[in-house]
Amino acid sequence: MESRKKKSTISSKAFANLFNIIEPMKSFQWGKDLGIENLHQGFTHVFDTSFETTEGLEIYLSHPAHVEFANEFLAHLDKVIVMDYKPTAVHP
Amino acid sequence: MESRKKKSTISSKAFANLFNIIEPMKSFQWGKDLGIENLHQGFTHVFDTSFETTEGLEIYLSHPAHVEFANEFLAHLDKVIVMDYKPTAVHP
Repeated sequence: MESRKKKSTISSKAFANLFNIIEPMKSFQWGKDLGIENLHQGFTHVFDTSFETTEGLEIYLSHPAHVEFANEFLAHLDKVIVMDYKPTAVHP
Repeated sequence: MESRKKKSTISSKAFANLFNIIEPMKSFQWGKDLGIENLHQGFTHVFDTSFETTEGLEIYLSHPAHVEFANEFLAHLDKVIVMDYKPTAVHP
């Protein structure tokens, strides 16, 4: 448990560090599932990154720092889902 | 495809309408996966809601309007993952 927590913290820091390197990343936040609902399907963490444009996302995806991080990160995950979307914000 | 798109739009509107009813919902945005990466595992849509406190999330979860919507919505989904987390925001 200790080593899993440590690994998770290291991965979060490495992920967050991309924010210092890859200019098109406009925000980065992450967190661990709180276990309030029972619909997590075994997933444990959320990482949420935003970009101003689809081109910015594509620059990020092909950036050497991201490619190196992603290869290392994905190799340590049991499972992963990545969704890229243009958010439609709703206001009351 | 037409009917799936229509159903998706109706569901998004019904989800968004909760924002007008349930006070602790602080933001709501949604979007469809762009298909840029190949890591969506068959999931098609993201719905992202924020709350100021965990208590706000719990009020939302037990609100009759949410319970009614969720029962209807979940019944029409092939699969779903729900993650609740306290975001740690990283700044460059």
